[in-house]
Amino acid sequence: MREYKAEILSIGTEILLGNIVNTNAQYLSRELASEGILVYHQSVVGDNPGRLEEALEEGFARADLVISTGGLGPTTDDLSKETAARFFGRKMVRDEKALANILERMTHMKREITPNNYKQADLPEGCIPLYNHNGTAPGFILTDEEAGRTLIMLPGPPAEMTLMYEESVRPYLKSLSDEMLVSRTLHLCGMGESGVEHRLRERMDELRNPTLAPYAKTGIVDLRITAKAHSEAEAEALILPVEQEIREQFGDIVFGVDDDTLESALAALLKEHGLKVAFAESCTAGLLAGRFVNAPGASRVFEQGFVTYSNEAKHLMIGVSEETLAEYGAVSPQTAAEMAEGAARTAGTQTAVSITGIAGPGGAVPAHDGKPEKPVGLVYIGYYVNGQVDTEEYRFHGTRASNRDNSVVRALNGLRMRILQQYK
Amino acid sequence: MREYKAEILSIGTEILLGNIVNTNAQYLSRELASEGILVYHQSVVGDNPGRLEEALEEGFARADLVISTGGLGPTTDDLSKETAARFFGRKMVRDEKALANILERMTHMKREITPNNYKQADLPEGCIPLYNHNGTAPGFILTDEEAGRTLIMLPGPPAEMTLMYEESVRPYLKSLSDEMLVSRTLHLCGMGESGVEHRLRERMDELRNPTLAPYAKTGIVDLRITAKAHSEAEAEALILPVEQEIREQFGDIVFGVDDDTLESALAALLKEHGLKVAFAESCTAGLLAGRFVNAPGASRVFEQGFVTYSNEAKHLMIGVSEETLAEYGAVSPQTAAEMAEGAARTAGTQTAVSITGIAGPGGAVPAHDGKPEKPVGLVYIGYYVNGQVDTEEYRFHGTRASNRDNSVVRALNGLRMRILQQYK
Repeated sequence: MREYKAEILSIGTEILLGNIVNTNAQYLSRELASEGILVYHQSVVGDNPGRLEEALEEGFARADLVISTGGLGPTTDDLSKETAARFFGRKMVRDEKALANILERMTHMKREITPNNYKQADLPEGCIPLYNHNGTAPGFILTDEEAGRTLIMLPGPPAEMTLMYEESVRPYLKSLSDEMLVSRTLHLCGMGESGVEHRLRERMDELRNPTLAPYAKTGIVDLRITAKAHSEAEAEALILPVEQEIREQFGDIVFGVDDDTLESALAALLKEHGLKVAFAESCTAGLLAGRFVNAPGASRVFEQGFVTYSNEAKHLMIGVSEETLAEYGAVSPQTAAEMAEGAARTAGTQTAVSITGIAGPGGAVPAHDGKPEKPVGLVYIGYYVNGQVDTEEYRFHGTRASNRDNSVVRALNGLRMRILQQYK
Repeated sequence: MREYKAEILSIGTEILLGNIVNTNAQYLSRELASEGILVYHQSVVGDNPGRLEEALEEGFARADLVISTGGLGPTTDDLSKETAARFFGRKMVRDEKALANILERMTHMKREITPNNYKQADLPEGCIPLYNHNGTAPGFILTDEEAGRTLIMLPGPPAEMTLMYEESVRPYLKSLSDEMLVSRTLHLCGMGESGVEHRLRERMDELRNPTLAPYAKTGIVDLRITAKAHSEAEAEALILPVEQEIREQFGDIVFGVDDDTLESALAALLKEHGLKVAFAESCTAGLLAGRFVNAPGASRVFEQGFVTYSNEAKHLMIGVSEETLAEYGAVSPQTAAEMAEGAARTAGTQTAVSITGIAGPGGAVPAHDGKPEKPVGLVYIGYYVNGQVDTEEYRFHGTRASNRDNSVVRALNGLRMRILQQYK
């Protein structure tokens, strides 16, 4: 494999103004690292042709592959793309397929078509066009074989950029190499990042091929095993023993692999045992159900969810008793238990999960009548599985958004662990 | 005021590997913008003296102020600081106050003191030391008056960097200037980015103080008006006429300003007219309710939400007729209308919104019985406001996630527009 030196160039005044955080650069850096391509430099310039040209000059003085994001919007496309075309000594040519895509999207979105939309379909001559299946602006791959330079320009909005990367750029980069990197990612939930790392530190340091690296997300730790090999089969033979070792060490904490998600793991488990689920949500107000239905096949195991934001709704929709609410309050293990039970009874399901808590920023309940304070971040999760009810208490310390996200992750995993336990 | 051109230089291999997202660069960019200091460039290099020296050369060729973060940890401090000292032609000198701080913290944390900890207290001669009240590594401000160059080196961990910035760097920068920048952001929903830009292009180009700049998010366009002035009052007097001009041009499409969100605008409008709302969600499955409750005061206008994922749930929970479901299907204007009406009736509210659609990736309904295909991305939104019912049809072309997000934005804004219309 040719050893590429790569740089990432982000184009966007909104990044220089600090209006957005540059997650694109992180995404691309991580992706390139996983293809074995080294990134020596990241830079950000504004939507300005002069500074973009300078950045391209500097970038290609250091590297032979520059991947840019941004600068392709309907008002700025001409600047970035034309600067790139000039830099490579190419003229701009209209791409009819890109134009058809733009016009179709604008029409369907009932948006006004402006002359700028036509210019969006212009691309440097001789490039590989990258069509945008999540927006209008096309990207492209432009190579100057003689100078040994490749420029890949991608749109700025992360949803557009990442889809284009996955559909077009990743296969392109893979096609350049005769060795391949094959990865498998194991997903863990139920142990913190530092706990996982502590147990695996030595193995991570000593493993060379495959390598083992952890990545943490809200409540979830991913372990990526990456092998370098000449064939899928060879890579697989390197990965498998490490995967088995991790599965033995962490047991049910490993909930899935690669494209599996916590919600898909739970949906598959429910289906396997012929169970249906219902959700009753207070502080998360629908986020749990909203996430669960991202699982393929969710509709086979889920029909009804209850967003019971007020005390009255908890009573009217799923029959939480008024005495419980008055005596223990909405944020209590007693209410969480009755919500889970009531959701299962009302929806006629064998399993249910409830969430009630104080997500913040306000809403803490001061100590009163000899009862302790209920602080922001206090969350109760209730579980119902075939008549067995129990609850969990959490005290989160994040923002409103992260407290709600953490609650959803814990709830999905909590039900998964309880079903595994009952059907062991 | 001297017009600084600034650059931000992030030092850290972990950023180039994509292990962390570079929030420091965003923080500093936003802070500098609010001091009226223009940032023309951000860059990232690894922990490598050679590439750091190159980065300093390039940075000071373009700018007269470079602020760096990172590279001051106990294992790398000598590299970055010594490279900077050499670049400015200074030698390193031990700072006794910095050393005392380091030794005290290490003792307090019960950490072993190593020779590297002493080196952490070495700083370039003649700099302004910046003491670290959240960690060990000191930062510094180093100026070469003759060359017109200032380098500010800050530690990498965000908690250390931001505290040092607030305590020391911000006052330093303010002391250099007698002008301030004040911004106001207007939020628009109901017109696409290119439509808004098309209408404002000339004004944006001709306005100098204040300036006017657009930013687009899912379904929302922000317009930021930024004035440079010697006082808040002077800035306000510059901003106000432009704000009024935009409000007159876009009318109800402007839903808020600065911290307002679509959900807070809707919640405030409901409260103003003494209305409550209910939500009935199929493909979004709770995301609409989950987002709405982010509005301050949401609990005063919202009690119940219905996640009606199956046909049976639509019938049982909110009384959508079985005939409608059989005749027109779950994804139809008829079902959307009955969902909205049924949600309002069941929850006893004056308003309601329903969403039913095919978010994807699968689920398209092929043409049959002379009825046209229902493609992925087809979404119907139903509205109920004081007995009036209507529906909207959308055809989104994004991923499952963006189709659902777009549906939620359209639904929040659609209800807002209908209430404004009825109470005009």
